Amino acid sequence: MTEVTTQLNSVEIGKVASLAAKIQEEPSVAETKWSAEVNWKGGFRSEAKIRDFSPTVSDEPPSLGGSDTGPNPVEQVLAALGNCLAVGYAAGATMAGIKLNNLSIKVDGDLDLHTFLGLKDGNAGFSNILVSVDIDSDASSEALQELHKNVTATSPVGHTLSRSVPVDIKLA
Amino acid sequence: MTEVTTQLNSVEIGKVASLAAKIQEEPSVAETKWSAEVNWKGGFRSEAKIRDFSPTVSDEPPSLGGSDTGPNPVEQVLAALGNCLAVGYAAGATMAGIKLNNLSIKVDGDLDLHTFLGLKDGNAGFSNILVSVDIDSDASSEALQELHKNVTATSPVGHTLSRSVPVDIKLA
Repeated sequence: MTEVTTQLNSVEIGKVASLAAKIQEEPSVAETKWSAEVNWKGGFRSEAKIRDFSPTVSDEPPSLGGSDTGPNPVEQVLAALGNCLAVGYAAGATMAGIKLNNLSIKVDGDLDLHTFLGLKDGNAGFSNILVSVDIDSDASSEALQELHKNVTATSPVGHTLSRSVPVDIKLA
Repeated sequence: MTEVTTQLNSVEIGKVASLAAKIQEEPSVAETKWSAEVNWKGGFRSEAKIRDFSPTVSDEPPSLGGSDTGPNPVEQVLAALGNCLAVGYAAGATMAGIKLNNLSIKVDGDLDLHTFLGLKDGNAGFSNILVSVDIDSDASSEALQELHKNVTATSPVGHTLSRSVPVDIKLA
């Protein structure tokens, strides 16, 4: 096993490489479980608790009947996608020896409210999501395109959105 | 047009009813656009900016090479689903005249890291998501089951995850 000690883009790539090596020896290590617990706070406000982090606030804008104390759930999905891609570019760039000077990601999604409001059957979710990635780096355009290809092929949140995930919602 | 003035569960259902009425007159009002902007902060840290809210921090746990300063992107997706369902139950219960005493939602997802780590082609996202909804209410079991059916049929984040969304990621 090769020890990778590179630290570029403030990414400790050795840890990622160690995890990958461990999984090759013991594939079940790759089977991860993630969780969140949401507690309703009245109106359209709720708080999400993840591990030991402070709860985050969710609400709806006034136009949707909320009290506007935080981003709404569909905005949170777009943020999660951008955050996930940022991890992907940072990891991939570091593996490829590409230094990132700056990285910003704009995520936009279109959503028709008819189904959410009970006016129509059908898709209540995003009809499409557009992402624009702005990378500031001295690497070649070819190297950045290759990085981009790898990131989009391996993004956990990207795939969660672009594929159909079985979602089982049960009353306790 | 019927004016709905009920305020139950701290939900101003009149605003939601007004929006629905407006959309029935002018369907294009239902076509909404949502956005988030993510800025990379070095390592696997990033911040997501939504409207005028304070940026939220995203990171990865140490096991995945992160500095563990915030929930990671796949956890954020699960939180968004729980928050979205909370809005759905609050809205639906209020429309049905059901008082909610308490509502908590546990969301769990399974994810195989092989694809994210470049060890395998295939699905980098959640293989499945399980949601357990705990409603404390004096309403009948039948009324709660009907509420549950309506909420799962109209959840924007639920549908975004359970359906395949076209996600177009472009280098600027």
